[in-house]
Parts: sequence; structure tokens; C-alpha cells
Amino acid sequence: MTALQNDTFLRALLRQPTDYTPVWMMRQAGRYLPEYRESRKTAGSFLSLCKSPDFATEVTLQPLDRYPLLDASILFSDILTVPDAMGLGLYFEEGEGPKFERTASDEASIRALEVPDMTKLQYVFDAVSQIRKAINGRVPLIGFAGSPWTLATYMVEGKGGTDFLNTKKLMYARPELLHHILEVNAQTIIQYLNAQIASGAQAVMIFDSWGGALSHKAYIKFSLNYMQKIVAGLTKNNDGCKVPSIVFTKGGALWLEAQAEIGADALGLDWAVDIGQARKRVGDKVALQGNLDPAILLSTPEAIEKEVVSILASYGKGHGHVFNLGHGITQWTPPENAAAMLAAVRKHSKQYHQ
Amino acid sequence: MTALQNDTFLRALLRQPTDYTPVWMMRQAGRYLPEYRESRKTAGSFLSLCKSPDFATEVTLQPLDRYPLLDASILFSDILTVPDAMGLGLYFEEGEGPKFERTASDEASIRALEVPDMTKLQYVFDAVSQIRKAINGRVPLIGFAGSPWTLATYMVEGKGGTDFLNTKKLMYARPELLHHILEVNAQTIIQYLNAQIASGAQAVMIFDSWGGALSHKAYIKFSLNYMQKIVAGLTKNNDGCKVPSIVFTKGGALWLEAQAEIGADALGLDWAVDIGQARKRVGDKVALQGNLDPAILLSTPEAIEKEVVSILASYGKGHGHVFNLGHGITQWTPPENAAAMLAAVRKHSKQYHQ
Repeated sequence: MTALQNDTFLRALLRQPTDYTPVWMMRQAGRYLPEYRESRKTAGSFLSLCKSPDFATEVTLQPLDRYPLLDASILFSDILTVPDAMGLGLYFEEGEGPKFERTASDEASIRALEVPDMTKLQYVFDAVSQIRKAINGRVPLIGFAGSPWTLATYMVEGKGGTDFLNTKKLMYARPELLHHILEVNAQTIIQYLNAQIASGAQAVMIFDSWGGALSHKAYIKFSLNYMQKIVAGLTKNNDGCKVPSIVFTKGGALWLEAQAEIGADALGLDWAVDIGQARKRVGDKVALQGNLDPAILLSTPEAIEKEVVSILASYGKGHGHVFNLGHGITQWTPPENAAAMLAAVRKHSKQYHQ
Repeated sequence: MTALQNDTFLRALLRQPTDYTPVWMMRQAGRYLPEYRESRKTAGSFLSLCKSPDFATEVTLQPLDRYPLLDASILFSDILTVPDAMGLGLYFEEGEGPKFERTASDEASIRALEVPDMTKLQYVFDAVSQIRKAINGRVPLIGFAGSPWTLATYMVEGKGGTDFLNTKKLMYARPELLHHILEVNAQTIIQYLNAQIASGAQAVMIFDSWGGALSHKAYIKFSLNYMQKIVAGLTKNNDGCKVPSIVFTKGGALWLEAQAEIGADALGLDWAVDIGQARKRVGDKVALQGNLDPAILLSTPEAIEKEVVSILASYGKGHGHVFNLGHGITQWTPPENAAAMLAAVRKHSKQYHQ
């Protein structure tokens, strides 16, 4: 493996000194890029991109080639590869969200769930190895998985949503069944992330996209505790070094104090919380990643720069900040506005690292 | 007017002593009730129910007749009556959310917006008078409106949504145009709520359903400041008495400290925040209304009672708590589970008021 030329992102995750605030964008390989839309057309579908290591490598590198100011890359994949490997049958209908052919929603289908053989996810690990080689040491590669709770919502509902009434009904009426799903998911994700690490992932991120739909108490019990178990189960990389971890609960900024205690190196923040206040609440326990509203990228370079300046100033002097959006970049983003954001972060962040 | 026989709800909003914790349910007149579905079938549509004072009275009283333990009633209406009166043309397509025939999304359509003549909303004020008479003093009647920001999202997008990209693009690129919409909305809502008060509303609630989609800074500037203006503009009732106000930002529990300063008597809470922690954060500045996850009502009476007990215990001893759901009751709720919730609140809350 070529030596890493830019470790700013990894150092920031560990709250070590850096010359500027590193930056990447959630969903940076995505539909807002014409070159991505071209690859997707060639591959035929989103899932074909995910399941082919060649295509996954191609699209993972597209934003790096376009934006030299990016400080990290992230595996192109989907959190739902995991329930798919469990046999639930992931598919996408044109213009709609992800769906599953089968659900895990009654006692029999839930009790039948098992940690899948990791060979079913070999295409992901192959993609990680291949991407890592192709990046050739330019920036670190992030591996990722969905949180046990977030995956459970799709497994119970059979599709995406926002109120998760079936999952919550299970949670309140048959909590032991939901705990079974979550335990299988957690054990699976530990193996899944460790295999990504063994294949070359240099940081890992857990996306708890739907943890914010829970009450405080339910969040701790049904989401955070299982993420804690995953973080504790992460292995070192092939060189015997610790791989930094990021936990991101969308809509979860109310519970940052609890999140800071689970052993993750960094917490993801959506744009709802003021990052300076978040920093005060978590102290020096974790680094923070975030938190520009991706909708700002639809406006103007001037407005974008103003918001970047405001977030950097709110975080203030010192290390431990990874700049990012508060959620995935939207498909309507003009690519030049993403460039304006990246340039503004580099331009204005150096003063906070002197 | 008949004298009010049960003022527990009004006293709680003003943090005065009560014998137990009063309770009502957001959207308590709704599709989960078979008698409501019958009325709606007769009326022909949701909008026909809203626009007919007779039907609005009929459905407002249905939950009161079914559940003697309810401590408040709320006008049956919709927050979108206001942009409809501004000429945007509200309509509903079967199985879909609300839509508008016209949007206020470019400079010309936004600058053309004006505070509508209140006679266009006379059907709402007539409903308030008629409901107030029909309730005959059993419990207080709540009037309501959407927040300026929440109404603006519908006016700009032309429909409901969750990411509000057009509204946010306007906010970041042309803030002065969004401020114009918000100012017109605020002035309209002041007149609208004051006319509801003059017609007999005994408390008013502002629903900021989409304030939680904003960043901290944007929430203060584009949502909270305009709600503060509305609260300051509320008039006394026909007897010269102050009418208590409730402000509810769904997804807004991060910002409770700021909400507690705007002069409202009570804050609504969704289920994300622990109500005991919320109480510590707002101190004795406001009463709190909430905050059971409505999804719990899909489970069992035992699970419901357990959660009610937990919320009451978290709020703890003392006054100033109005029990409610953290969001509207879902259409899939078995009516007997709503009864179980109401009974649990009455049974377990008395000990906290001794």
C-alpha cells in the first residue's frame, strides 16, 4: 500500500493538531455529479453500482478527481446491503426508495434472522480493497454501516418511512423481539465493519439515520446501546493500529452527552445544533463532524461562504473538527457550489489551528 | 355563555395548582374514531368538514362525548386555511397531503402577498362560536394557527414535504423575500387568532410543525422571532382576561431555552426530549405540554400505562404539566387504547399534585 499523503482527517478524528479543518461531504459520490449519473446509466441502476467493485471504485473516486480539496473518501455502498445479505431481498423501484421482498416483522420471521455468512458481502470488501488501491494514498478511505436500529426499521417496515409505526409497535408491545433483531444486526455489523477494516478501511462511520425518531429513553435502549456494542467490537487494522470511529444519529443532537460516552472517536452532527454549543456539551471526549445544512448548497457562493465562516467560528479555536454537511448532499446541488464550500473551509479554517 | 365546569387545563397552562394533570390529545377529533370517519363520509371530504361550522362542531365534540376524561377540546380546522384565504387555492387529492394551486415562490408572487380580509375566514370564527356553545362549559376550547415559518414552507413549495429545499434556497439566497412572507403570515395570524379569541377560544396554540427542519440560528431568525411577535399581539378575551398561549415546535427540543423567553405560557414537547430534563431547562418560565410518542397507542394498555407513569414521574411533583401526545394521534390507533392512556393519566397523576 502507498503511504497516506494526507492524514488531516484521521488526525482531526483523534483530536490531534492539524493545519486546517479537514472536510468531506456525506454522499459526495452522488447524483449531483454528471460523471456519477453517467456511470449509473452505464451500470444500469444504483444497486449495480454498489454490487460491482469496479463501478463502486469508479464513482468513489469521481469527487476526489473533481475536488482536490477533499480530505477523505467514503466507500460507495448502501447501508441496506446488510439486511439484503440476511436474505430479505433488497430492491429499488424507479423513483421510489428502497424496498424489501420479505420483512422481519412477525415472531417467526424475526426469530429466523441470523448473522449472514460474510461471503455474501464479499463484493463490499472487494470494493474496499480496490478503492483503497485506486486512491493510492491521496486521502483516507472511510468504511461504514447503518446502525442496528436504523436497519431494523427497514427490516420491519419493508421500506423506508418516517414514523416507523410497525417497528415502534413491536418496540412497545414485544420489546424482546426487537432486541433480537438489534442483537443480530449488531453482531453482523461488527463482522461487517471489521472485514472492511481488514480490507483497508481507515476509519468507520455508523449511520443512525433514524435514531432521531425515538424518545430519549428508547434511543438509549434500542439504538445507542447497540452502537456502543459495535464500537467496542471493532478490531485494529492490519498494521495493528486503531481505526477511528464516527457515530452519527440524524436528529439526535438532544442526546450528545450520552453519545459522547460510548467510546466512538467522533460524533456526526446534523445542522439543527449549534456546533459551538455541541462542543461545550461533549467537552474533549470526542471530535465533532458537521454541520452545514446541505440546502445551503442550492443558494449562492456568497451565502455558502458566510455559513461556513459562521460554523468554523462557532466551533472556534483548536482541533477536533471535521467539516461536513449535516446530511447527504442533495441531487440538486450545482457542483460548483460544493467547490465553493470546500474552498471556504480551507480558506477560513487555518486561523483556528494556529 | 355557560360557566366553565373544568378549568384544570387552563390552570395548568398558567402553572396554577390543580388536583391532577389535565390531558388532551393532538388531533383528538380524527380518523381513528369511527364516528369521525362517518361524518367525513357524509361531508364528502376533510375540507368540507373544516369549512362547515356544523360539521366542525360535530366532529370537535365527538372525542368529548366518547372520552369523559378529556380536559380540553380543540377547534376542528387546518393550519392551511390561512394561505388558502390568501388566495393560494388549497386542495387535497385522495390519499395525498395538502397541495396549493398557486405558490408564493418567486419575487412577484411573494411581493403580491397581503394580509387577507378576515371575512374569508369567517367560517372558522363561526365554527369557534358554535363549538363553544355546543361544549356548554364542559371543558375549554383551544383555537390554533400554524406558525409563520410552517405556513411559508407550504406556500413556497406548494405542498407538504420534509426537506423544504425551495424554501431554504429562498432563505439563504433571498432572505428578504422570505421575511416578507413571514411578516405577512405573522400579521395575518395575529388577526386570525384574535378573531378566534373574540369568538370564544379560551386558549390558543401555535403549531410550528416544521421549525425542527432549521438550524439553530435560522430557527431563531425565521421561526421563533415571528412566533414571539404573534404572542405579543394576542388580545384579551371579551371578559378582559388573558388567553393562555402554547407554542409547539415539532423537533425543536434543542431550543427550549429560547422558546421559554418569547412570552408564551406553555411549550409543546414532542417525545424526543425527556420531560423532566425539559422542565429543568425551562425552569418556572413556562408550563410544558406533552409528550407521549403517539406510536405507543398502537401497542397494549399495559405498555401505555407504563409509559404514562414514566412521563408523569419524569415531570415530577408540582404543577404546570398538561399531558398530551408528542404529535397528532395516528389514524391506526384503537380507540380503546386512547381511553387507556386517558385513564392512566388520571389514575397516576393525582399523587404529583398533593
